Amino acid sequence: MTASSSPALDVALAYHQAWTSHDLEKAMSYVADEIVCEAPAGRLVGAAAYREFMGPFVQILTSSKLIAAFGDQETALVMYDTETLPVKSAPGAECVTVKDGKITHSVFVFDRAPFDAARRDAR
Amino acid sequence: MTASSSPALDVALAYHQAWTSHDLEKAMSYVADEIVCEAPAGRLVGAAAYREFMGPFVQILTSSKLIAAFGDQETALVMYDTETLPVKSAPGAECVTVKDGKITHSVFVFDRAPFDAARRDAR
Repeated sequence: MTASSSPALDVALAYHQAWTSHDLEKAMSYVADEIVCEAPAGRLVGAAAYREFMGPFVQILTSSKLIAAFGDQETALVMYDTETLPVKSAPGAECVTVKDGKITHSVFVFDRAPFDAARRDAR
Repeated sequence: MTASSSPALDVALAYHQAWTSHDLEKAMSYVADEIVCEAPAGRLVGAAAYREFMGPFVQILTSSKLIAAFGDQETALVMYDTETLPVKSAPGAECVTVKDGKITHSVFVFDRAPFDAARRDAR
């Protein structure tokens, strides 16, 4: 893990700690109502849409490992690996913008291909 | 763009600047012969394998935009968006370990799904 203290990083890591501990409610407490998230499948607008995106992922998460985390006053960048029920190694990266202690914008990068493949295999 | 100066970040950004300028040779000059890269399709070992991975991507790249970049002594974390011929928005993130001015390890995250879809559509 690599971390340099910053207000945005503190929020990003608290959010990260919450969802990787399967505490979706606590994770959402760091997400602004008006969040805009650029996710692989398209733009998500608002906390409800974000919750619908994260909820199922948190349910299939079995373990996670922080790879690196950095931030400054308003921006944090976090990369991690996750192990999920369908996909053994599913690394992700998030660049979050934090205002007043909440994540208002996020760019979310992960590879959907192995999840798509697992869904096809399950049919 | 968010950047804090660090030896690893300097190398990561010089590498990034090179490949996003279609200068694969210059980009490879920042890559250690013994690089190990955890890429979406699996582990790449050695500069030759890395070049085979990056070369085709650099050829289809039409533009790029740095989203955030941070680093410390040995580690840098970079996120960017790219526009490619088959996929209009293909963001990626790289966490690189730098030793003696060269990238020795990399975790590379991007979404293969839209590239897979473009390939299917092209058939």
